[in-house]
Amino acid sequence: MPCVAVVDTTFARVNMAEEAIKVLKRKVPAIKIKRYTVPGIKDIAVAVKRLFDEGCDAAITFGWVGPTQTDKYSYLAMSIALQMLQIQYGKHVIDVTVHEDEASGEKLKEVAIMRAREHALNLAILLTKGPEGLTPLAGTGQRQGWPDVGPL
Amino acid sequence: MPCVAVVDTTFARVNMAEEAIKVLKRKVPAIKIKRYTVPGIKDIAVAVKRLFDEGCDAAITFGWVGPTQTDKYSYLAMSIALQMLQIQYGKHVIDVTVHEDEASGEKLKEVAIMRAREHALNLAILLTKGPEGLTPLAGTGQRQGWPDVGPL
Amino acid sequence: MPCVAVVDTTFARVNMAEEAIKVLKRKVPAIKIKRYTVPGIKDIAVAVKRLFDEGCDAAITFGWVGPTQTDKYSYLAMSIALQMLQIQYGKHVIDVTVHEDEASGEKLKEVAIMRAREHALNLAILLTKGPEGLTPLAGTGQRQGWPDVGPL
Amino acid sequence: MPCVAVVDTTFARVNMAEEAIKVLKRKVPAIKIKRYTVPGIKDIAVAVKRLFDEGCDAAITFGWVGPTQTDKYSYLAMSIALQMLQIQYGKHVIDVTVHEDEASGEKLKEVAIMRAREHALNLAILLTKGPEGLTPLAGTGQRQGWPDVGPL
Amino acid sequence: MPCVAVVDTTFARVNMAEEAIKVLKRKVPAIKIKRYTVPGIKDIAVAVKRLFDEGCDAAITFGWVGPTQTDKYSYLAMSIALQMLQIQYGKHVIDVTVHEDEASGEKLKEVAIMRAREHALNLAILLTKGPEGLTPLAGTGQRQGWPDVGPL
Repeated sequence: MPCVAVVDTTFARVNMAEEAIKVLKRKVPAIKIKRYTVPGIKDIAVAVKRLFDEGCDAAITFGWVGPTQTDKYSYLAMSIALQMLQIQYGKHVIDVTVHEDEASGEKLKEVAIMRAREHALNLAILLTKGPEGLTPLAGTGQRQGWPDVGPL
Repeated sequence: MPCVAVVDTTFARVNMAEEAIKVLKRKVPAIKIKRYTVPGIKDIAVAVKRLFDEGCDAAITFGWVGPTQTDKYSYLAMSIALQMLQIQYGKHVIDVTVHEDEASGEKLKEVAIMRAREHALNLAILLTKGPEGLTPLAGTGQRQGWPDVGPL
Repeated sequence: MPCVAVVDTTFARVNMAEEAIKVLKRKVPAIKIKRYTVPGIKDIAVAVKRLFDEGCDAAITFGWVGPTQTDKYSYLAMSIALQMLQIQYGKHVIDVTVHEDEASGEKLKEVAIMRAREHALNLAILLTKGPEGLTPLAGTGQRQGWPDVGPL
Repeated sequence: MPCVAVVDTTFARVNMAEEAIKVLKRKVPAIKIKRYTVPGIKDIAVAVKRLFDEGCDAAITFGWVGPTQTDKYSYLAMSIALQMLQIQYGKHVIDVTVHEDEASGEKLKEVAIMRAREHALNLAILLTKGPEGLTPLAGTGQRQGWPDVGPL
Repeated sequence: MPCVAVVDTTFARVNMAEEAIKVLKRKVPAIKIKRYTVPGIKDIAVAVKRLFDEGCDAAITFGWVGPTQTDKYSYLAMSIALQMLQIQYGKHVIDVTVHEDEASGEKLKEVAIMRAREHALNLAILLTKGPEGLTPLAGTGQRQGWPDVGPL
């Protein structure tokens, strides 16, 4: 029974975690979900770490990043931290981040929901099928939240 | 009796720590505060580390960042350090940073004070209610210092 | 019998791993390949780490990076993680990354394929000839995916 | 008898260490100074580390950064390293850096000298008065090398 | 008999290592050189690490960085890795990097050769004279590859 840490923020403008949890439960019925909500993206890594220490096998996180340069540096700091956690624990952290300069309004909401669902599916495949579960799609231009672009 | 490290700087132009301490004491009456004041943002992480080693359970830090590109790189270095500390100790560091290019004069002072108070409240909730204490607000577009923007 | 970890993504638009594996098998017939496919570049480091823990002696990874500033920060986070892995394990991670702002369409595909092959060859030389295997080419302006530029 | 590591570079155009040592000796008469001069800013962190391992309790470093983007990335790498050292050892590293795009000629020299002296004073206060030694100045807009800007 | 790791790349357009080795052997006749050639700058850190583990006391590395923003991020990742290595081992890594946007053609070649020689000399002084060997030059505006600019 795999345990997945689901970490999201109050800063985000879409409840992406909810969407992802639905997908995870449908694809991996025996899954155990542990949720942790933090204020913003710079609080995500420690939440993942705590849930890893409680035994979670993988994590999926939902960040939301403003449009300024400062926001982008915060995103970079968070990304580095999630990299360090992954290589410390050897556990996947699927980082679902929405950037406010990608789109706006309803379109941005749609991107967020689709990205959350599609990355939850990616995580489900990694958890159930292992290292080569996604290999049939290698190099095929998959996108999450936007249409796939296909192979060149 | 939770102990919270409060770290601030002489570089900042608003005494944000004072505001945050009031909120923390009101929301978590049994709280123990340890304060550490340093010159600037690149001195914050080591102060947090020392207070964690003295037994603090969480930290809230108050940074103030100038408007130049160099200032932003200093912010990035500090942010990475606070991420590393959080994943080393498994303790929250709520990083309250004010950027001089956000606003100016009285407005910037107001942003700083409100951000300090609102993040102190976030920390109080995390300390008293745990991982799902903020979940009712997940994806609701909370902001600190500026008006909430709400969900999409 | 050296074991090489081959990590690629579903985000990429060219199956670079396939090209590299052909070269590796031809140059190092006794080689053992372990493949791991992940969604995107921020998932690469943990896959390498897992395969290193399963005994792989080196890795070759295939990243694909979009043209935006955000994409570049993700590239930076991944690059830092691969650096940290390399200095933790003392094992090479040959990082083959294609950036969408290098070229487009067929030309980009050609760059990707050539870069994968040429870096696979670099790895084969490091594995079979050791630290001075590439020394005859030191300072000679080798490029992968684009024509060599030669020494000044 | 506190020991302070003083690390500076041959790249800098002002002998800032000399100025800082005078202040430190006047403010903390029993102080022991260990000096280490390196070529440039990317050599500073290892010098601090060596002097920490020889028993120094804190460090003050003097960097000088050119005006190009590449220089700024070198500054960032150094800053991250000094952060990591501080959180590894729990010892302060007061990082006095002068950036060539701050001013030029005599003015830049004056900034460098004043910054060195003022940060030496900060360090002396931290060493002799501890975590709350600077608290009376918290949020008061102190600057080093330029005039203080005061609280908002 | 000090052992120095000399790490260079096939990407570089000048054989800088060769120049540096000549200087090192002349200045430190008993020196032992271990050379390691890698494809590009992101492969340098692991080579240094391996040679440190084989007993080298210090390293000098020769990077060559293209003119694009992506190249600069690769430079940053490498620089951070070399910082981490230095503070892990307490050994100097003199990082000699040439950036293609510094100059071009013959001039760039001259910069590369002079920088390699001058930094080899710096390393020789650190190895033979220790922490204060370069102190007489502190704050004197030394440059490597370009003319010294002198103190302000």
